Amino acid sequence: MSTQAKPILYSYWRSTASWRVRNVLSLKNVDYEYRGIDLFKEEHKNDSYKLLNPMGRVPTLIIDGVALAESVAIMEYLDETYKYRPLLPSDPLKRASTRQLVEIINSAMQPMQNIAVLDKIGNEYKQSRKEWASFWLHKGLAAYEQILKQTAGKYSVGDQITLADACIVPQVAACSRFDISLERYLLIQRVVGNLNELEEFKRARPEAQPDADKI
Amino acid sequence: MSTQAKPILYSYWRSTASWRVRNVLSLKNVDYEYRGIDLFKEEHKNDSYKLLNPMGRVPTLIIDGVALAESVAIMEYLDETYKYRPLLPSDPLKRASTRQLVEIINSAMQPMQNIAVLDKIGNEYKQSRKEWASFWLHKGLAAYEQILKQTAGKYSVGDQITLADACIVPQVAACSRFDISLERYLLIQRVVGNLNELEEFKRARPEAQPDADKI
Repeated sequence: MSTQAKPILYSYWRSTASWRVRNVLSLKNVDYEYRGIDLFKEEHKNDSYKLLNPMGRVPTLIIDGVALAESVAIMEYLDETYKYRPLLPSDPLKRASTRQLVEIINSAMQPMQNIAVLDKIGNEYKQSRKEWASFWLHKGLAAYEQILKQTAGKYSVGDQITLADACIVPQVAACSRFDISLERYLLIQRVVGNLNELEEFKRARPEAQPDADKI
Repeated sequence: MSTQAKPILYSYWRSTASWRVRNVLSLKNVDYEYRGIDLFKEEHKNDSYKLLNPMGRVPTLIIDGVALAESVAIMEYLDETYKYRPLLPSDPLKRASTRQLVEIINSAMQPMQNIAVLDKIGNEYKQSRKEWASFWLHKGLAAYEQILKQTAGKYSVGDQITLADACIVPQVAACSRFDISLERYLLIQRVVGNLNELEEFKRARPEAQPDADKI
């Protein structure tokens, strides 16, 4: 792994995809420079930013001379190149379970509640953002909970912190923004409770970021 | 890798996520049993199927004694356990580019045009399915094309067939169902043209599956 320069993370404090990557950087103990991208000022739509991130989204990680985008690709890269504290189990079937959990969040939950989608639902179609988001998020939570019955220990997959844990903490926080009750999801509650106690997760939280709203 | 029993793929012929996994099984030369799940008969919502796939989606791969779900998790598992023809580059930065391309399709394109989402947009919100799908699919295509300017050779990432290729072929086919023109996406056209010539990709196509509509 080359370490010529400190990695730079383009992030928005409340973005759950950015938060996932912050969790991984924190767990891996990587020192990085934080650069806030204000989604409400549409800084992610600037041409110069889109050269780094063709989808025009956060996060982007500048590392080893290139700009990496898409949170799952970034997390896998960090896990492959920073050997400290592996975030995927060594057993291939457990790796598959971990990635299954990651993808439930990454492809079935978060895409349904990102700002661009909610704006189209609310502004253009005049539908309830909250009803739309709840509908999809409950589906994902129910599936995640069902899988945890097979996989969970202290964390999502046994007692090892994994990429799934890096994703579930931000996703549960997003659910609370839509007033989604976690009552039915006891294992998720337990796992997230355990994760939230860890210093590595605390320093990656939105309110600990330099661009957080100070209210 | 244990091979006690032939893997079983639960698939729907036109499902692009199923098609991705069929591409990988074909590229890896894995012999498997095909079981059609008819989404229009809602077979994916059966309780017995949801025990295998908690999200109630296709595909599911029964392999090495377990049921794997989420296409990206399945593809990564197959690439890790079947060493023949690696579908991720050995260079970590190229692996990251590959996964970036995969996730543009998996998290930004396909989730916007799956049947459940289109039904909600069309049946419940009375909006145009085609307009909704086009809006998101063009964003993804434009980003994929921009990345290909850096990465493409004969295929999406150089001259090696990768997981990104397994995903782009079905996604382009889905785009054509929404009458999306690929005119602006010359590199995607070239790469997909090259892939479609390969026998491994031909046998994974929807019309070659046992559950394909015979019209």
